Amino acid sequence: MKISAPRQYVVDNLKYALSPSSIAVVGASRYSTKVGYKVIEGLKNWGYKGTIYPVNPRAEKIHGLKAYKTVMDIPGEVDLVFVAVPAHLVKMVLEHAVAKKAKMTVIATSAFKEIGRGDLQNRLTQFCRDNKLPLIGPNLVGMGSPYLNFNCGFIPYLPIKGPVAMISQSGANLLAALGTSQTSHFGMSFFVGLGNKADVDFAEFVAYGAKDPNTKCISTYIEGLDSPEAYVKACQSVVREKPVVAIKVGGSKIGVKAAFAHTASENEGTDDAYYDKIFEKAGAIRAGTWQEFLDISLALGMQPELKSDNVVMITNGGGSGLLACDHFERVGMPLTELKDISPSLIQKIRAYMPMFGSPLNPVDIAGTASPIQYKGAFRQALRDPNVDGVIGSICPTAVTDVPAVTDIAIEIYETYKHLGKPFIMECQGGGECNESIMKLRDHGIPAYPTPEQAVNAMVALRKYAKIKKMIG
Amino acid sequence: MKISAPRQYVVDNLKYALSPSSIAVVGASRYSTKVGYKVIEGLKNWGYKGTIYPVNPRAEKIHGLKAYKTVMDIPGEVDLVFVAVPAHLVKMVLEHAVAKKAKMTVIATSAFKEIGRGDLQNRLTQFCRDNKLPLIGPNLVGMGSPYLNFNCGFIPYLPIKGPVAMISQSGANLLAALGTSQTSHFGMSFFVGLGNKADVDFAEFVAYGAKDPNTKCISTYIEGLDSPEAYVKACQSVVREKPVVAIKVGGSKIGVKAAFAHTASENEGTDDAYYDKIFEKAGAIRAGTWQEFLDISLALGMQPELKSDNVVMITNGGGSGLLACDHFERVGMPLTELKDISPSLIQKIRAYMPMFGSPLNPVDIAGTASPIQYKGAFRQALRDPNVDGVIGSICPTAVTDVPAVTDIAIEIYETYKHLGKPFIMECQGGGECNESIMKLRDHGIPAYPTPEQAVNAMVALRKYAKIKKMIG
Repeated sequence: MKISAPRQYVVDNLKYALSPSSIAVVGASRYSTKVGYKVIEGLKNWGYKGTIYPVNPRAEKIHGLKAYKTVMDIPGEVDLVFVAVPAHLVKMVLEHAVAKKAKMTVIATSAFKEIGRGDLQNRLTQFCRDNKLPLIGPNLVGMGSPYLNFNCGFIPYLPIKGPVAMISQSGANLLAALGTSQTSHFGMSFFVGLGNKADVDFAEFVAYGAKDPNTKCISTYIEGLDSPEAYVKACQSVVREKPVVAIKVGGSKIGVKAAFAHTASENEGTDDAYYDKIFEKAGAIRAGTWQEFLDISLALGMQPELKSDNVVMITNGGGSGLLACDHFERVGMPLTELKDISPSLIQKIRAYMPMFGSPLNPVDIAGTASPIQYKGAFRQALRDPNVDGVIGSICPTAVTDVPAVTDIAIEIYETYKHLGKPFIMECQGGGECNESIMKLRDHGIPAYPTPEQAVNAMVALRKYAKIKKMIG
Repeated sequence: MKISAPRQYVVDNLKYALSPSSIAVVGASRYSTKVGYKVIEGLKNWGYKGTIYPVNPRAEKIHGLKAYKTVMDIPGEVDLVFVAVPAHLVKMVLEHAVAKKAKMTVIATSAFKEIGRGDLQNRLTQFCRDNKLPLIGPNLVGMGSPYLNFNCGFIPYLPIKGPVAMISQSGANLLAALGTSQTSHFGMSFFVGLGNKADVDFAEFVAYGAKDPNTKCISTYIEGLDSPEAYVKACQSVVREKPVVAIKVGGSKIGVKAAFAHTASENEGTDDAYYDKIFEKAGAIRAGTWQEFLDISLALGMQPELKSDNVVMITNGGGSGLLACDHFERVGMPLTELKDISPSLIQKIRAYMPMFGSPLNPVDIAGTASPIQYKGAFRQALRDPNVDGVIGSICPTAVTDVPAVTDIAIEIYETYKHLGKPFIMECQGGGECNESIMKLRDHGIPAYPTPEQAVNAMVALRKYAKIKKMIG
């Protein structure tokens, strides 16, 4: 339901969703395929430190924990009520939560507005709003944070620690991102599935992300905005400090219907251009595809903004360089030749390449490049006052020492980090390259397996600089 | 140098490049960082079955093999002469190769046309043409085939066996593809780096791919076409039987210069639209990015063409479905609602989803979907006479049995393969999904980690159907 701006009592209470001292799991189950089983299993397995109260009228113990008939029967305070009971029982649970003075409620249950029960969903929302009990969901997968070993929902993974707050309306895509986090070292600060977002909305999680010290980039997967004004306001007040990334689906003809069927998102009468305007006003950086969404989120979470278009790419693979420079032009930020960025840099960099290399830009230091040549080229480019960003690229030829070049990249990045210039790596190949990418990411360097992904990341950092300048 | 059509003597002799009985490695070296060392090491390590003759005027033995002062000193027949000596010595080696009646020569050496020595390169080419000795290169990385355990060049990987012939002008990108082959189970039939393609050109390798029984899709990474007519002719005569994929770089303003510096490719006066026309005439399917190039090559190598736009997507993740249907519309092939494809299929598929699922299209069988539900939905969709292609999608919710659904997909694919309908999978998530993707690919099902990649693959199969119809 619509809000006009992030509500302070909601933003204040979100800490009880992401860091509760106690959780009542209503619909706790003894059967391992049930959501109400998975939630408690996840909390316990991942190391939740607070108190778990299973609620089930027909069980004495669940997962070895004493079970309670209702939320009201729980002896201690309850920060968070997690609801996994059938839809027709939810209202009663909410009444109990209010009576218990719970701080926050999360409804995982499906079968509300997305199947035509909008009235029921609205009544529940109004009841929660009247009682100042923020409600996350319904129809969602859960939330958590790797910094707190907190995994609350039916979520098989906990992501690795990192800079990106992942706020997703889709449970499945949230889970996909969490899985990717582990396998691709995509670090997150916290994550949440919003589902139908009947009450708590994107705007409030964006505002929460602004305050969260682990969050450096706030990423939002959107199927529909009920409250675009609130989203815009929340973003505008955070983007000076932290970038916001948005991906919006459901803009296609069939997508309008699919988004309603999925999370009851209303997209009739809106199109991609409509959302372009919203994101522009908000100062949010829009991604087109899921891969781009992840890629630019990581870069924005790890690296400073790019202050000008003066990017230098240094590669040992001319093909990588070509894919990159074509893509830079395709997305509207063509590379500038090195002679026009910094004529003196050409001579400095020539010292680190063979005669058949090319100091154009991309700078091709050739397939024979050694770690020492990479080091010299990286250092010269980063130190040059006319260069504002560097993309390094490794292609594994038979003579390329990929691990050594990776270590050089990390060393150079650490040495020159204080200059505030984005440094992005691309490593196009097989197993060695994957390991390199993981290690670079672990050291705060966004690294990607294709040139185009590295370009998208760098372009996003440029967009962020322009947004900061515009919003002032 | 320009050719007007694939030359028969070259096409006939290419078997000596990809399956030689004997190889002379000129510039064979005892030093492990040298190309002339790596080549022999690669041949031996990967299991080359033929005879290797190291050629080095200052060594008795190299890699335990007797070395010869020149190619002419070799006692037996020489199918392939691999040249890794400095540029000024190449002419002499070619004279020896002609005198020895070698069948094919490959020049790895750089520093020819790409650094302004076009005249020298042209003289060498003319000499080879006058003597009917086909020349691959110069400035290339090598070639090979996993079916023959043949890895000839400075190439750290051998790809896994599979349907894609990879013909690349860039050595680094070829190596990247080979690395990806191992880590992502992207199977290849053979691979070759063309480098400056002074003599043997794309057209001739395309014609060779047409005859190669392991090749099901011919993929070409192009920095510039010297002989567009020959490329068009070669493609036209193969695309009835096998699809051709093309990626063309060097179309951006800076890319024109970078492509020349890299592989002496001449792109002045050509632009992306120029190449669009060439590929259209050729019947080649053009990819925009490196990832798309790999993704659509795999699909075209594994699956039949898509006979109509009637694709059904079946997913347990509404978000995946939305990303896919938006992308289908974005690339110009919007999905059709199930009710307009096959009204009766809606009821059949409803039996395999909960009430909060959605039979729209994408068909959302919901996060709770079991392997049995997947099986029923896949089967109904594939068997429906109005459905011409199916995308299956797995999102790992806490209750999703990813390995079981993967096995179901393979079983269903095997059962209904005879219907000739493309079946593509998407599995968006972490480690479990990666394993699923590998297993699916090993069973001939193109599988991808994001919805947009699966869509691109399906769209390419549709393009191929249209090309076959047009070329007829």
